[in-house]
Amino acid sequence: MSLKLYELVGTDASRPFSPFCWRTRMALAHKGLSAESLPWRFTEKSTIAPHGSEKVPVLLHHDKPVVDSWTIANYLEDEFPDRPSLFGGEGGRAMARMINAWGDIAIVGGIFPLIIADIPNNLGEPDATYFRQSREARFGKPLEEIMANRDSGVVAFRKSLEVLRQTFKTQPFIGGRAPDYADYIVFGGFQWARVVSPFKLLEADDPVYAWRGRLLDAFDGMARKSPGHPV
Amino acid sequence: MSLKLYELVGTDASRPFSPFCWRTRMALAHKGLSAESLPWRFTEKSTIAPHGSEKVPVLLHHDKPVVDSWTIANYLEDEFPDRPSLFGGEGGRAMARMINAWGDIAIVGGIFPLIIADIPNNLGEPDATYFRQSREARFGKPLEEIMANRDSGVVAFRKSLEVLRQTFKTQPFIGGRAPDYADYIVFGGFQWARVVSPFKLLEADDPVYAWRGRLLDAFDGMARKSPGHPV
Repeated sequence: MSLKLYELVGTDASRPFSPFCWRTRMALAHKGLSAESLPWRFTEKSTIAPHGSEKVPVLLHHDKPVVDSWTIANYLEDEFPDRPSLFGGEGGRAMARMINAWGDIAIVGGIFPLIIADIPNNLGEPDATYFRQSREARFGKPLEEIMANRDSGVVAFRKSLEVLRQTFKTQPFIGGRAPDYADYIVFGGFQWARVVSPFKLLEADDPVYAWRGRLLDAFDGMARKSPGHPV
Repeated sequence: MSLKLYELVGTDASRPFSPFCWRTRMALAHKGLSAESLPWRFTEKSTIAPHGSEKVPVLLHHDKPVVDSWTIANYLEDEFPDRPSLFGGEGGRAMARMINAWGDIAIVGGIFPLIIADIPNNLGEPDATYFRQSREARFGKPLEEIMANRDSGVVAFRKSLEVLRQTFKTQPFIGGRAPDYADYIVFGGFQWARVVSPFKLLEADDPVYAWRGRLLDAFDGMARKSPGHPV
């Protein structure tokens, strides 16, 4: 089976870091599928433009492009129905859509200002300049200024994870007894942070820390083995 | 089939208002079940104590008590498996656990300070006094003071609903093409507010407003027909 995955990297091509690409990586592993990694950098837009996308992940299945992590997850679920389900039924697929939005807003959006100025350290040129200019334009201030209050910002971020703590009181994963795509949505953000930044997001006694550890260990430690900072 | 539901009411016994009881009401309707309503008030703790609970909803099924809205939803799903599913499979059941936590924290917790001082207007004595004293002790200030900034508070609340707006871009309900328990979790909070307070939570052009309208209309307008303020 021919699967290839365009993944965001920086200086080190073996160190993919996009939270959205990590959602897809974990989804592929859940399905027992392996994909050839095609390292891609921020400024290589012309490489993926022919596949109809400006962003990664882009999955190529027999050279057919599938664009956007949510679309890819649905594609994998439908294309490989006999392999372990990513959603555990149609109810799960629908609810995962909302958890995907929560993952984008509360997790990726919540973590971004806590690690944003660390990201260029992982990038060569011209990507570092591209990243700085585009994100400083988006936020309207220098990356260092966005990140200046992260010691207090992380307290609010941890508070926003109470939804997860309540969930983990009665089940080890968002997906229940075993992880599913709902877990990978949220985990992608934590793995992104782990790869690009030494900043400590979670306290060791946080149930979310333990959950993250279970996902770092999943699939024979796939995410833990990927280069990153100690967490 | 003998089903009875203890529901929180105030002066008007036909005006149940607890967000958690509304989750159960909607879940019963989804399953096509009707339950005899047993109106219950805050200070009638001795009535439900024999059923092992201090709070409602308490469902009695052939006199067997089932306590707590989440437990009741799971009970109904397991006890009536041939009726329409509340979760759409085991993945949905697991993910609904997290959406339940989000509903408790972001919706019920988010709405509470916006309507809290309106609630005693719906209560007779001794419930109004009980409510005021217990909630003022919890928040550490008078109800009116908690609610004083609701015109700015509601702006932050609306912003917190972005997760729902993102979801409704591609599907009409959290449960997908049709509502399921994930919707009732969130809707319960809005119905609570509608029953007890004239305060306008949502702008009419908000996709969340349209979604709430669809749920008010569900089950032959069950929630809309229940007495409440115009929304």
